[in-house]
Amino acid sequence: MTKQLVLEKQKQAAEILNEKGIDLWLNFVRETGNIKDPMLDMLVGTGATWQSAFIITKEGDTVAVIGSLEKGNMEQVGTFKEIITYVQNVREDLQKILKRFDPKKIAINFSRNSTLADGLTYGLYLELIDHLKETPYVDRLVSSEDVVAALRGRKSDTELALMKEAIKETLRIFDEVTGFIQPGKTEIDVANFVRSKVAERGYGFAWDEEHCPAVYSGPGTAGAHAAATDRKIEKGHVINMDFGLNINGYCSDLQRTWYVLRDAEENAPEEVLKGFNVIKDSIQLAAKAIIPGKMGCEIDDVARNYIVENGYEEFSHGLGHQLGRVAHDGGALFAPRWERYKNLPFIPIEEGNVFTIEPRLPIEGYGIATIEEEVVVRENGVEFLSNPQTEIYLIK
Amino acid sequence: MTKQLVLEKQKQAAEILNEKGIDLWLNFVRETGNIKDPMLDMLVGTGATWQSAFIITKEGDTVAVIGSLEKGNMEQVGTFKEIITYVQNVREDLQKILKRFDPKKIAINFSRNSTLADGLTYGLYLELIDHLKETPYVDRLVSSEDVVAALRGRKSDTELALMKEAIKETLRIFDEVTGFIQPGKTEIDVANFVRSKVAERGYGFAWDEEHCPAVYSGPGTAGAHAAATDRKIEKGHVINMDFGLNINGYCSDLQRTWYVLRDAEENAPEEVLKGFNVIKDSIQLAAKAIIPGKMGCEIDDVARNYIVENGYEEFSHGLGHQLGRVAHDGGALFAPRWERYKNLPFIPIEEGNVFTIEPRLPIEGYGIATIEEEVVVRENGVEFLSNPQTEIYLIK
Repeated sequence: MTKQLVLEKQKQAAEILNEKGIDLWLNFVRETGNIKDPMLDMLVGTGATWQSAFIITKEGDTVAVIGSLEKGNMEQVGTFKEIITYVQNVREDLQKILKRFDPKKIAINFSRNSTLADGLTYGLYLELIDHLKETPYVDRLVSSEDVVAALRGRKSDTELALMKEAIKETLRIFDEVTGFIQPGKTEIDVANFVRSKVAERGYGFAWDEEHCPAVYSGPGTAGAHAAATDRKIEKGHVINMDFGLNINGYCSDLQRTWYVLRDAEENAPEEVLKGFNVIKDSIQLAAKAIIPGKMGCEIDDVARNYIVENGYEEFSHGLGHQLGRVAHDGGALFAPRWERYKNLPFIPIEEGNVFTIEPRLPIEGYGIATIEEEVVVRENGVEFLSNPQTEIYLIK
Repeated sequence: MTKQLVLEKQKQAAEILNEKGIDLWLNFVRETGNIKDPMLDMLVGTGATWQSAFIITKEGDTVAVIGSLEKGNMEQVGTFKEIITYVQNVREDLQKILKRFDPKKIAINFSRNSTLADGLTYGLYLELIDHLKETPYVDRLVSSEDVVAALRGRKSDTELALMKEAIKETLRIFDEVTGFIQPGKTEIDVANFVRSKVAERGYGFAWDEEHCPAVYSGPGTAGAHAAATDRKIEKGHVINMDFGLNINGYCSDLQRTWYVLRDAEENAPEEVLKGFNVIKDSIQLAAKAIIPGKMGCEIDDVARNYIVENGYEEFSHGLGHQLGRVAHDGGALFAPRWERYKNLPFIPIEEGNVFTIEPRLPIEGYGIATIEEEVVVRENGVEFLSNPQTEIYLIK
């Protein structure tokens, strides 16, 4: 599966290089066991120890220039048509291969805007410049960020199938959590229950296990990006959980909301239902607004405005992000026009992009209402990849 | 444990900054879920999403400048005395904090020589320079490589205790493998048996699971750094395995050698025993040569020369590397004076360093003899952390 997927993405990469007017894409890496370029899994399917160049040309050539000890492994992996090995120093072979293709424009793995296109560390960049300093190629280097955004963003059918599998298994665990939640249990109890299911089934986590899942019970919790605590679940709490799996290299990222009924209650109170429904409806409104060519900030507007119009404070983060091999994938972003998001809210949405939609609002005295769904962008709109949550889950 | 260890290493870092004449150490990172600075686990104990600065001064101050949404998490983790949060852009707070300490010399997280000190990506480096361009600090930046080498290399007692635990559990699995090896089983069978034990016990792998363990059976195998294959184990094969665990954030890295007896044999043939014993003895000779202050190339010489004097070809890699939080840790290296090792063979060995010793030689017609042990450098010599293999393991 890995090899087939890598070859599929390499082919797509060559098409994108043509589209963007780039002749050759050079990914320069070393000791990937210590720090790994985020594109390596997709483009190569294995790591490298010594300074190594993984090259894709707009004609579809693929050339790996690697240390001699790693030839056997590279042949086993089988994703590069040509393998050139060196013993002492990569410089000579690197210069030779560039001379052979003589590219006018070379994309390399750095970017100020996108971390996924920024896998070249600064020390290694200095090495690369030193290798090329007496060649014309040192003046032909550009950022790979546009290529990376297109390649990661436009999901193939194989990728979508893997993502659906991760979503299905995530929703299965959410269902099991509904049976597990009880007053008196702690956020950590819930998180550990989820982790035990993940371990039992041999899956990976979509982000670091310490914060995956994130579980928040009741009013005044720490908010996004914090770990579960020993706070006890109580009757009258709104609970939410942010959780994703990594299965066969592709991630899910979903959120669901529960309410713990008080003794006399048969349903959640009015204000809880209202908060939940505003979140639910804002997701549907945002989803309906999505078509290829629009900018992410326009989609963010729809949900953000609806929530504020209904009397709630606006959420302090973007409405949604792309995902794929990682939970926070690069390129176009559903986010407001805030400086910290740089150019990402203004990148046009493309067919084949997979986005989360994840608004949030506080319900005074109860907790946080959040739902996170996943959609794929089609020619005329979106298709939901997750089966959307339509009613708050009640715990008796 | 994590918090205690981070605080221990931060304290040590401040001492090393004094020793190296550096006033302030600035680790600049972002989106560590996508690409993570190799020093972050040791210095911070958690990740960061937006551009973030983790600062340690030679006076022992620790300051985190992070995105506002991550304040709760950072407080939970509790490893930084001062937490400064921003909403729009890190620049203003970063400039302010540097002005407050007014350092004359600032180490930042880049290095041409050491990947573990090279966590700053080139795009993010450009951002950092832009943040500092109107301050005097932009001209005071130096590589953190000397600080990183000393900090990672000088193991504390807590770190050594964790490493011994990982070694103990690794040797336990090697013992179990001896009971599992049978002619007719494949390299992949052996690797999967090991992986099942690791999963069962909830441990991590010291390097990527695809190549951990590496298993080689018989003559003409792919050599180092390749994955296990479907090659079948046969009578008359020398088998070796390279394997390490990651337990509580610290790694082991060990190798052992087996021989599969042919029908009439009660012991391995002369030439197999000779090859094995040359490896075994070269390790003891190298270990006896180690004292603080020597250079790694001198240690490499001892084993390499002994192997060549005994009529075998020299191994095409270094004799050993440091290890700790990762299997290939930075700093001084037991390696020959080859260009691809840069300055590493010439860095003096220090007390508290943990090294592997892992020579290798081919036994014509049988396979590869390798043993890998781990030693810690003490004031007057070394202590073996692993219980050395003294006889080749025989499979009936």
